[in-house]
Amino acid sequence: MAELRHDLLRQRWVIISDKRGKRPSDFKKVSSQNRDEFDSGPCAFCPGHENENGHEIYAVRDGDEDDAPDWHLRVIENKYPAVSPSFDELLPSGEGTVYGACRLAGFGSHEVIVETPSHHLSLPELPSSHVAEVLKAYQARINHFQNDSRFKFCQVYKNRGNRAGASMSHSHSQLIALPVVSHNIQAELRGAQEYYDKHDKQCILCDVVRHETQVNRIRLIDENEHFITLSPYAPMFPYETWLVPKNHSSNFETVGEAEILSMAEMLKLTLRKLDVAFGYPPYNYTLQTAPLGKEHLNSAHFHWYLDILPHLSSPGGFELGSGCYINPIVPEEAAKFLRNIEVQQL
Amino acid sequence: MAELRHDLLRQRWVIISDKRGKRPSDFKKVSSQNRDEFDSGPCAFCPGHENENGHEIYAVRDGDEDDAPDWHLRVIENKYPAVSPSFDELLPSGEGTVYGACRLAGFGSHEVIVETPSHHLSLPELPSSHVAEVLKAYQARINHFQNDSRFKFCQVYKNRGNRAGASMSHSHSQLIALPVVSHNIQAELRGAQEYYDKHDKQCILCDVVRHETQVNRIRLIDENEHFITLSPYAPMFPYETWLVPKNHSSNFETVGEAEILSMAEMLKLTLRKLDVAFGYPPYNYTLQTAPLGKEHLNSAHFHWYLDILPHLSSPGGFELGSGCYINPIVPEEAAKFLRNIEVQQL
Repeated sequence: MAELRHDLLRQRWVIISDKRGKRPSDFKKVSSQNRDEFDSGPCAFCPGHENENGHEIYAVRDGDEDDAPDWHLRVIENKYPAVSPSFDELLPSGEGTVYGACRLAGFGSHEVIVETPSHHLSLPELPSSHVAEVLKAYQARINHFQNDSRFKFCQVYKNRGNRAGASMSHSHSQLIALPVVSHNIQAELRGAQEYYDKHDKQCILCDVVRHETQVNRIRLIDENEHFITLSPYAPMFPYETWLVPKNHSSNFETVGEAEILSMAEMLKLTLRKLDVAFGYPPYNYTLQTAPLGKEHLNSAHFHWYLDILPHLSSPGGFELGSGCYINPIVPEEAAKFLRNIEVQQL
Repeated sequence: MAELRHDLLRQRWVIISDKRGKRPSDFKKVSSQNRDEFDSGPCAFCPGHENENGHEIYAVRDGDEDDAPDWHLRVIENKYPAVSPSFDELLPSGEGTVYGACRLAGFGSHEVIVETPSHHLSLPELPSSHVAEVLKAYQARINHFQNDSRFKFCQVYKNRGNRAGASMSHSHSQLIALPVVSHNIQAELRGAQEYYDKHDKQCILCDVVRHETQVNRIRLIDENEHFITLSPYAPMFPYETWLVPKNHSSNFETVGEAEILSMAEMLKLTLRKLDVAFGYPPYNYTLQTAPLGKEHLNSAHFHWYLDILPHLSSPGGFELGSGCYINPIVPEEAAKFLRNIEVQQL
């Protein structure tokens, strides 16, 4: 039975279409050779190649010398940045009436978080404490932009595998900070506000966490002290997974040390499950957190989460034109499948 | 110089980032073997295989017998439909407060337009008169849904090539009609209405056509009696091209015979240019026309267009998370490049 499901937070319809009869094994075939990507190297992100990269912004290392090869994790400027850190021409400028005020100079910051010196390890193969350092690097950078009023928005994301947009196989994530707020996060802020107003000042994701853990656990995948993972009610992609803090929090960068370690353990488990289930598939994750600025700090209606999106199918013209996604995997079935994947401790 | 450009119609920011230094020849490599896909066959869309497909809905053929192999063009039910034409369970049903009224049965129609009996020809290799028949088939189907009040929205689209979401290489397009309006077209309706209200009742795309043909022709690619093609001001994809009617029209399905032939010629030219420039690349096109229903007929602010989207790069986590696209090709350069591509008459 096909269904149309509406995502109240993201404000979009999804077509859940199990008529297409896809099974997990159909996807495993698509992506079975992806582990090979890690077997080349060394590359420009490996220790000893520091001078091939952009400027070092942040690092966790043994010594205290910038650009030395004794690092465990580095944040560097993207050598091919989508935006520029110079602030020369921020004034809006247009072209005639029809494009008036539609153009800004491409000010922003585009950074790469090189997650490990090891070319051959993927993020979930690192110790939890190391994954926690990666998350703390995200926090440090977002906190940096919180202190610079020129920035309004910061998107942290990871592209893993060529089909998910990665040009380097060495484990890394990225962030782009911009002087404008993206329309996706604007839509989520609106969705969260509408729910809050309609439901007696309840946060939508607090209600989701309560529903999925206490009322009906059919979309719950895993749970630990501070986090749950779940298949969202209206997922855009097969096996899309949300990692959600149990306690209300609008701003990822304010999360404390204990929660970050708990999140690292949950992220590691979730990504390992995808690797085991689908043979090191390409995937993205995106951190959906409040925009920068005091007006969004400690929002009562917005609740941050990490959206993990395996690339097991290719969206086409329908998705591009309409913005609606067709998902051949019922999320309740996806959750059951992922819940039962067993992973070995690494 | 990177730029942030805002699309007033689609209401989204795009990062135009020529710092990444991409040239047309960088993309040609990616897609050079795509023509080979056409050399397999025959397939289920070929004449003589009619009984392997879903029910025939519409056809242009020599005789008058349904499912006979004497057709030039057929519209058939998708054998693996994303939605179902049965209307049994349309009433909203939810699950608890948090998902209340977020679910509809997957009612809709998912159809395939098999554009030609020839397995080896792509759409722009057909005569203009035949391409016009394909466009008239789109019109006939949209007009059909206009007469059925259960449908609110119809997305016509084409996936060409595996990377653009196509599972069959035989030239075809598709449509999905739904009982809900997609949020992308809702955003475009809002964008068009806001522009109309702010600019003394001018239609945004009428102003774009005027600007691009009379004020500054730097984004204009081609022009004929009734249509122009242009690189949009804030394109999401490299070499994205809009095919726009010169005269105001909100509803594609009401366009007359002379305009359809003019559109067919322009579409053929545009797709041929992409094939010549990028070696038969994967692409999508999507028809952005008014939603179904009398309230949207002859809208003064919305103006339909065909959005042609070559798949020359892979969007990643930044695009999925933020909804903003990074485009490494400045649209004014893309237009210049495409304007100068010479194609031979077929």
